[in-house]
Amino acid sequence: MSSTFGTLFRVSTFGESHGEGVGVIVDGCPPGMELRAADIQAQLDRRRPGQSKMATDRQEADRVRILSGVEFDKTLGTPIGLLVANKDQRPGDYGEMSQVPRPSHADYTYQMKYGIRASSGGGRSSARETIGRVAAGAVAEKYLRETFGIEIVAWVSAVGGVEAPDIDSTQVSRMAVDANPVRCPDAAAAAAMEAEILQVRKEQDSVGGVVSCVCRKVPAGLGEPVFDKLEALLAQAMLSLPASKGFEIGSGFAGARMRGSVHNDPFVRKGERLGTLTNYSGGVQGGISNGEAVLFRVAFKPVATIGLAQTTVDMDGREVVLEAKGRHDPCVVPRAVPIVEAMTALVLMDLLLRQRARRGPI
Amino acid sequence: MSSTFGTLFRVSTFGESHGEGVGVIVDGCPPGMELRAADIQAQLDRRRPGQSKMATDRQEADRVRILSGVEFDKTLGTPIGLLVANKDQRPGDYGEMSQVPRPSHADYTYQMKYGIRASSGGGRSSARETIGRVAAGAVAEKYLRETFGIEIVAWVSAVGGVEAPDIDSTQVSRMAVDANPVRCPDAAAAAAMEAEILQVRKEQDSVGGVVSCVCRKVPAGLGEPVFDKLEALLAQAMLSLPASKGFEIGSGFAGARMRGSVHNDPFVRKGERLGTLTNYSGGVQGGISNGEAVLFRVAFKPVATIGLAQTTVDMDGREVVLEAKGRHDPCVVPRAVPIVEAMTALVLMDLLLRQRARRGPI
Amino acid sequence: MSSTFGTLFRVSTFGESHGEGVGVIVDGCPPGMELRAADIQAQLDRRRPGQSKMATDRQEADRVRILSGVEFDKTLGTPIGLLVANKDQRPGDYGEMSQVPRPSHADYTYQMKYGIRASSGGGRSSARETIGRVAAGAVAEKYLRETFGIEIVAWVSAVGGVEAPDIDSTQVSRMAVDANPVRCPDAAAAAAMEAEILQVRKEQDSVGGVVSCVCRKVPAGLGEPVFDKLEALLAQAMLSLPASKGFEIGSGFAGARMRGSVHNDPFVRKGERLGTLTNYSGGVQGGISNGEAVLFRVAFKPVATIGLAQTTVDMDGREVVLEAKGRHDPCVVPRAVPIVEAMTALVLMDLLLRQRARRGPI
Amino acid sequence: MSSTFGTLFRVSTFGESHGEGVGVIVDGCPPGMELRAADIQAQLDRRRPGQSKMATDRQEADRVRILSGVEFDKTLGTPIGLLVANKDQRPGDYGEMSQVPRPSHADYTYQMKYGIRASSGGGRSSARETIGRVAAGAVAEKYLRETFGIEIVAWVSAVGGVEAPDIDSTQVSRMAVDANPVRCPDAAAAAAMEAEILQVRKEQDSVGGVVSCVCRKVPAGLGEPVFDKLEALLAQAMLSLPASKGFEIGSGFAGARMRGSVHNDPFVRKGERLGTLTNYSGGVQGGISNGEAVLFRVAFKPVATIGLAQTTVDMDGREVVLEAKGRHDPCVVPRAVPIVEAMTALVLMDLLLRQRARRGPI
Repeated sequence: MSSTFGTLFRVSTFGESHGEGVGVIVDGCPPGMELRAADIQAQLDRRRPGQSKMATDRQEADRVRILSGVEFDKTLGTPIGLLVANKDQRPGDYGEMSQVPRPSHADYTYQMKYGIRASSGGGRSSARETIGRVAAGAVAEKYLRETFGIEIVAWVSAVGGVEAPDIDSTQVSRMAVDANPVRCPDAAAAAAMEAEILQVRKEQDSVGGVVSCVCRKVPAGLGEPVFDKLEALLAQAMLSLPASKGFEIGSGFAGARMRGSVHNDPFVRKGERLGTLTNYSGGVQGGISNGEAVLFRVAFKPVATIGLAQTTVDMDGREVVLEAKGRHDPCVVPRAVPIVEAMTALVLMDLLLRQRARRGPI
Repeated sequence: MSSTFGTLFRVSTFGESHGEGVGVIVDGCPPGMELRAADIQAQLDRRRPGQSKMATDRQEADRVRILSGVEFDKTLGTPIGLLVANKDQRPGDYGEMSQVPRPSHADYTYQMKYGIRASSGGGRSSARETIGRVAAGAVAEKYLRETFGIEIVAWVSAVGGVEAPDIDSTQVSRMAVDANPVRCPDAAAAAAMEAEILQVRKEQDSVGGVVSCVCRKVPAGLGEPVFDKLEALLAQAMLSLPASKGFEIGSGFAGARMRGSVHNDPFVRKGERLGTLTNYSGGVQGGISNGEAVLFRVAFKPVATIGLAQTTVDMDGREVVLEAKGRHDPCVVPRAVPIVEAMTALVLMDLLLRQRARRGPI
Repeated sequence: MSSTFGTLFRVSTFGESHGEGVGVIVDGCPPGMELRAADIQAQLDRRRPGQSKMATDRQEADRVRILSGVEFDKTLGTPIGLLVANKDQRPGDYGEMSQVPRPSHADYTYQMKYGIRASSGGGRSSARETIGRVAAGAVAEKYLRETFGIEIVAWVSAVGGVEAPDIDSTQVSRMAVDANPVRCPDAAAAAAMEAEILQVRKEQDSVGGVVSCVCRKVPAGLGEPVFDKLEALLAQAMLSLPASKGFEIGSGFAGARMRGSVHNDPFVRKGERLGTLTNYSGGVQGGISNGEAVLFRVAFKPVATIGLAQTTVDMDGREVVLEAKGRHDPCVVPRAVPIVEAMTALVLMDLLLRQRARRGPI
Repeated sequence: MSSTFGTLFRVSTFGESHGEGVGVIVDGCPPGMELRAADIQAQLDRRRPGQSKMATDRQEADRVRILSGVEFDKTLGTPIGLLVANKDQRPGDYGEMSQVPRPSHADYTYQMKYGIRASSGGGRSSARETIGRVAAGAVAEKYLRETFGIEIVAWVSAVGGVEAPDIDSTQVSRMAVDANPVRCPDAAAAAAMEAEILQVRKEQDSVGGVVSCVCRKVPAGLGEPVFDKLEALLAQAMLSLPASKGFEIGSGFAGARMRGSVHNDPFVRKGERLGTLTNYSGGVQGGISNGEAVLFRVAFKPVATIGLAQTTVDMDGREVVLEAKGRHDPCVVPRAVPIVEAMTALVLMDLLLRQRARRGPI
C-alpha cells in the first residue's frame, strides 16, 4: 500500500528483480500529449547499469513497453501502463546469502516486516524498482518541459571526499552532465571522482556521494501549505530512493549556521515579475515556489554490497563471514542522477496539477 | 487540500494567526485510550512562546479544548477535535507590511498562489499552525509510549556555529533537554548557545540551528517499502515544518563521504533479537525500522523576521526599506523541539497502524 | 480514518451528540470567494430539528462559527474550520439503554468495532454528525452556483406508501420544496404525506421515504472513469447518510426491466451543444456528466427509534423489552433534503476541481 | 487519477480494449498467502465473453500473467502485477462510429472530458476494463475465504421483467449459480430469463437485469463510520461498474415504504454471539457489519450496443442513423456476476485490514 505516489499525477510501481518484470502505472497524465516509448527510453538508458567501466557490467536491455493509455502516439488521459521485462525471471537460489541478512541491506527488515522475503533478498528495495520511477518521471518531465518550459538537471556534486561545489546552476545542462561517466559537469572534479571510484573498486569497497539538482523556470505558486510543501514532497521523494540518507534545499544545513540578515533573500524586480537577489531559500518560501530556481542536494551512502569480507550473524545469531561474489557498482551516485530527476518531475507535476485545479477555469 | 497528514492516523490542521483559533482533527486514534486535555497541554506548553528571556515575550495561554472523540476521559475511536482559541481574533491592519512582501517570508508566494492572503501575511505558514501538529502528536505519542514503550526525544544540537555533537542518544531524556532554556542537554554547549542567541537578539538579527531526535524502542518492521519508507515520511514531516531546510538520518551527509566497509552495520545478537554493532543506518534499512534507535537531524534557517532594516521591493517592484517592529524570537530552534517530536510521533503512529493491518498485532 | 471525504475539496467532519460540538474542516476551497456564516446557516436551519409539528420539538440553535480560512468575508484558500456547539455537553446517563443495544441502531456495531461506545449510543452514527456535512456542502454549493450556475434541488418524493412521482425536475425550486413542511413540491401528495406522518407519530411508530434530487447546468466532463465515476461517488455519498438503504440514478432499478432500444438516449442538437432526447442515463454516461440534468433518488428506511415496545436482548443475550422515551422524529426524510443537497455539492465540487486540474492552464 | 480503489488493499487498473493489454496492480496484499495464476483464472473465465450461445461469441483467451509480488507461489507482501494481453492490439478504424457518438455509450463524454478518445470509443468505459477488477478481486477473495471463511456469492435475480426473488441467500452457492448460463439459481426463472435473452437477441435489442449478492460469515465490526460505511463503499464499488444504475442494501427501496416497528431487526442470542431475528438492515448498522449476512442488489441497464437502427446526431449535430455491426451481448448481467463478487471482495478486504489496524487481529 506504499508503492503509490502523488495525488493527481499518481504513479504506482511494481516488480522485483526476479519475476516477469518491473513497471509502473501512471494515472492522471493530461490527455493529448505526444508520447512514444523512445521518450521514456532515453532516461531509462541513463539509469541502466553497465554504462561505463566504473559500473557493474551486467548488461540489461531494459526496453520499455507502453501497455495502455496511449494511442496513435498520443496520451488518452487514461492510465499509462509501462513495463520493462526482467531478463532473469527465475527466483534465484542465493544459497548462504538467503540465510544471512546482509549488513545494511533490507534482507533483515523485510523478513521482520513480512515474515517472508524474495529470494533475491531485498525485494522491492532493489535498485531495479527505480525503473518504474524513471519511466513515470520521463512522462511527467515531458509535460513540464513542453507546457511550462521547466528544466530539471541533476548532477553528481560529490563522490566520497571529492567535491564539485562550483557548478553554475543557472546554466548546467544534461549534455554537460553526461560529458563524463561520473556525471559531474566539472571536468577536473570528475576526473578525481573517477579515480576515487576506480580505487574503491580495486579495494572491493564502495563509496557514497551527493547528487545536486536544479529546477529552472518553475512558475511561482507550486507547493501546498502545511504538509505538502514543495520541499516536503521533494524530501519524501528523495529519501524514498534506495541508499539516500539526507536532503537539503537552498542553504540547507549550512543555513543553520547563518544569520537572518544574510540568509533573507531580498526581493528585486526581474522584468515583469518579482525575484530575489540571493536564493538561500532554494526557490521555495512557505512551502511554495517563488519563481526562482529550486535547488537541492541529496546524500547517498556507499552501497552495501562490497567484495570485502564482513563479519556478521545469520538469522539465528550465529557469527558468519560474508563475501559478496560477482561484480557490483562501487558507487551508484552517477546512476542516481536520472532517478533524482524523475522523482523531481513527479513532485512538480503533481503540484502543478493541484495548483491548476485551484485557480483555472474548467 | 494539503493540511491532512497520514493514512490511518490522519490529522487535519486548520487555523491562521487571526480568526477564532487553530486546531486539529485527529482521525484514526485507537479507542479506549485514556486522554485528558492535560496530556496534550504539556507539549503545547513546551511549544508556547514566552518561555524564557530568549524568546518573544508575547504571552499566550494556548489552552487546548477537546471538542469531540473523548468521553469520560477515554478515546472513542472517533475523530478527536482539538481547538486552541486565538487571543487576538481581529484580522490585523499590518499597514505597510501588507503591501510589501517580507523577504524570505511566505507573503509573496501566498499572494502568487492564491491571489489573496491573510492580513497577517503568511497565513498558514505562521508558526501558530504548528499548534495543531503538537496537539495531535501528543495523542500519538501517548499511544506509542503506553502500548509499545516507544520513546521520542529531540534536542537542540546546534545554534548558529555552536554545536553539541556529543549527546548520548541512548540516554538523553526530556528532563535533561528541558534543564536549560535552549533545550540542549550539554550544559556547556547550552551556555554558549544561550550567549549566541542573546548576542543575536541584541543585534536585532536571528540565527538558525539544528534539532536532533532519537526514537528508542521502535519495533522492527515499521515503514512501507518504496514511497512511504520510514525515512521518507520523516523527511516529509520535517521539511513540512516552518523554516526547516534539511533532513538527514543516520550517517546523513557525512555518510556520502564514507566507504561501505565502514558504513555497513554488521549484525550482532542482542538478547532475543538481532541488532547491529554500529548504527550508521539510523535505525532504518530499506525504509523499514530494524529495531535499533532511529536517529535524525533537522536543519532550521534563521527566522526571517529581524529588527535590522532590509532593502527590498513592494509588490509593484518599488524599492522600500523594511524594519520589523516589536519583539521577535531571534532563534526558534528551542521551540522546534516539541514540534519535531510531534511530527515524529505522527509518522511512527501511522506506520505502526499500517503494519498492524498487515500482520495482526505488532 | 473515515471521516474525510474528497480528493481536492476535502472535508473532515468531527463530533458526537455530546461533547463540545460538531463541525467540519473544509480543505481545498478556492480562494477569494465571499463567505459569511449566514451563507452556511441557511442550509443548517433547513436541517435543524423542530421545524414543524411533525418533527421532534427539541430546540437547538445550531449556530455555525467560522473558525478559520476566511478573512474580511473572503475565503483565503486555507482550511475553513466550521463549528456548531452542542447545547448539552455532558455525556448522558442513558441507563438501561446503554446496556441494551437498540434494534437497528449502531449501538451494537460500535461496541463490536471499538470495544467502547459513546454513552449516547451510536456516537458518530448520530444524525447530528450531518451538521458538518451540511455546513461544508453549503460552501461547495455557493462556489458551484456562483462560478458555474449549477443548481441542486432535492425534495421528498415518497413517504411510506405515498408517492409524488410527477415533479418536473427541470423547474422544481427550493422555494417550491419548502412550501410545505414535508418538502414535497406536489401539494396534494404533500398533504397525504403529512397525514401519514402524523398517523405514524400517533401510533408511536416511524416511516421511511425517498428523496429525489436534480442537478441542473452541470457542465459535461465531470466524473472520473473507473472507480470515481460521478454516479459511484454520488452513491457512496448517499449511502453514507444515516438510514439510507438505496440509490438509483436515471432509470435506476426500473432500467433493469427496459430494452436498450428504449433506454438509449439519442443525441440531438441543443443550441451550441449536443444533448439527449431522453435522459434515462440520468445525466451520466461512462461515469462522466454529459451536460443533461443529473437525476437520482435515495431510499431511507424508517428511523429506528420508536415509542412502541420492542422485544430484544441485552449484550449478555438476556431478553428485555425496550420502550423509547421522549419525542422522536417519526420520519426524517424532510430533514434529509438539505443533507442530500450538501453531499451532492461535495461530490460535484470535488470532481469539478479534478477536471479543472486536467485541462486548464496554471 | 481515478483508477485506484482502496486504502490499504489498493488496486490500480489500467488498459483499453486496444493496446498491449489490461491489468491491475494489487498493493497491500498480506504476505505469505499461496497464490497461483490458476487461482485468479477461475473468476476471469467466469467473466469471459463467449461462454454460451446467449453471449457474444468473440473468443478471447484472457490468460492472466503474474508479473510481480509472488515467488514460489507465495505472496511477498509487495505489489502484485497482473496482466492479460489483448488479442487485437491495433487501434481500430471504427470509421463512421468514431465520428458519431453512440447513444448511451461514453464516446461523447470522453470526448468532452479529455478532448480526445480511444478509437474504440469509450476507452476505459469498455467492459474489458473489468478484467483488472476481477483479477484483483480473486486475490482478495482468496484471503477472505482462507483467513475468515467469508463466502461471497452473487447471482442473477432479474432479467428484464423476469424475476427470481425467492433465492435462499443462506444456502446459495456458486455451483448452483453456474448450473445454467444465465447464472440464476432458480431453474424455472433461469429458463424464462434465457428465453427472454434469446428473444431480445432475435430482435437485435438488449435487456437489463439485476444481480443480487450475499456475503456470509462477515465478522462484526467491518465498515468505517461516516463516509466509508460498508454500504457506502459497496455502493461506490457497484455504481462504478459499467451499465449499473442502482444499488440497494437490505430492505432497500422497499424499506422506504415500511414502518419502523416492522423494519427494526430485534437482537436475539445466536450461540456465542448476538444476532438479529430479521435482517432488513442487510447485515449493516451504522455503516458497520453486525455479523449477519450482507445482502444487496445491483441494477444494470440494457447494454447500449444494439443491432436496431438508431437515429442520433454526429459531433457536429447532423442527424445520422446508426446500426451496430457484428454480434453483441444482448444481456451482460450473467457476466456481471463475477464482477460484482470481485468488487465486493475488494471492499471487504480493505475494510478488514482497516479494522485490523485499529484493534489488532480481528
